[in-house]
Amino acid sequence: METDPGFIAALEEAKKGYAEGGVPIGAALVSKDGKILGRGHNMRVQKGSATLHAEMSALENSGRLPASAYEGATMYTTLSPCDMCTGACILYKVKRVVIGENKNFMGGEEYLLNRGKEVVVLDNEECKQLMEKFIKEKPELWNEDIAV
Amino acid sequence: METDPGFIAALEEAKKGYAEGGVPIGAALVSKDGKILGRGHNMRVQKGSATLHAEMSALENSGRLPASAYEGATMYTTLSPCDMCTGACILYKVKRVVIGENKNFMGGEEYLLNRGKEVVVLDNEECKQLMEKFIKEKPELWNEDIAV
Repeated sequence: METDPGFIAALEEAKKGYAEGGVPIGAALVSKDGKILGRGHNMRVQKGSATLHAEMSALENSGRLPASAYEGATMYTTLSPCDMCTGACILYKVKRVVIGENKNFMGGEEYLLNRGKEVVVLDNEECKQLMEKFIKEKPELWNEDIAV
Repeated sequence: METDPGFIAALEEAKKGYAEGGVPIGAALVSKDGKILGRGHNMRVQKGSATLHAEMSALENSGRLPASAYEGATMYTTLSPCDMCTGACILYKVKRVVIGENKNFMGGEEYLLNRGKEVVVLDNEECKQLMEKFIKEKPELWNEDIAV
């Protein structure tokens, strides 16, 4: 599953975010027939945004779609989703959330399962190392983003 | 509580949304010392946005803030918050969610309570009538927004 185009896109997005000096979390929303509907990364630094986490950016960049577009979709994200992004996945009825890693942050995985979502954690080394490096370099930015 | 500046702002925002031909839901985020940090309305039609529900707009329009800014804050919204907006309120640790009405849509109120939030439902006539009128006029838009 680490070779899925959706996961590769999410990881590329996270690296873009890092290169821009932002919070290096990326995501991609993939339809049930394998089309990337949207991809994006956290935009707190780049746009001064409190809502454009990676998953939200992927949703936003997918544009205005009918509910049917999300049926059976998978959200790929490099880090376990926060409560907001968890709720967004539930609202739009994505079927599955594929998570790069949850060692640096554990989000709403249990709630996703309770709400009938499939959750896959890849425990991907590259995701872990990128996030770990970022948190060491900019702990105050990370705490701001995750509202600690 | 229907005379709170936050609720008045939320209702004004909902009416703006209706006048713009959009989904008429408004919100305002108010700090513990009574300052309106941000206000906004649903932007699905106006910006083609899948993420800027009213509460998300209010958060986004509050700008990039440290976590301390949200401490003890109240989110006023004209309609019971969907799963995404519920999650956003939890992420940013708002203390209280004041809801205009929940007859036209019942969102994540129980989950908010489970996560330790205070929930107040005003059962406001103006909110109910505005939303009811909109749903009758544009059922397909409402279904799209709430991902039915």
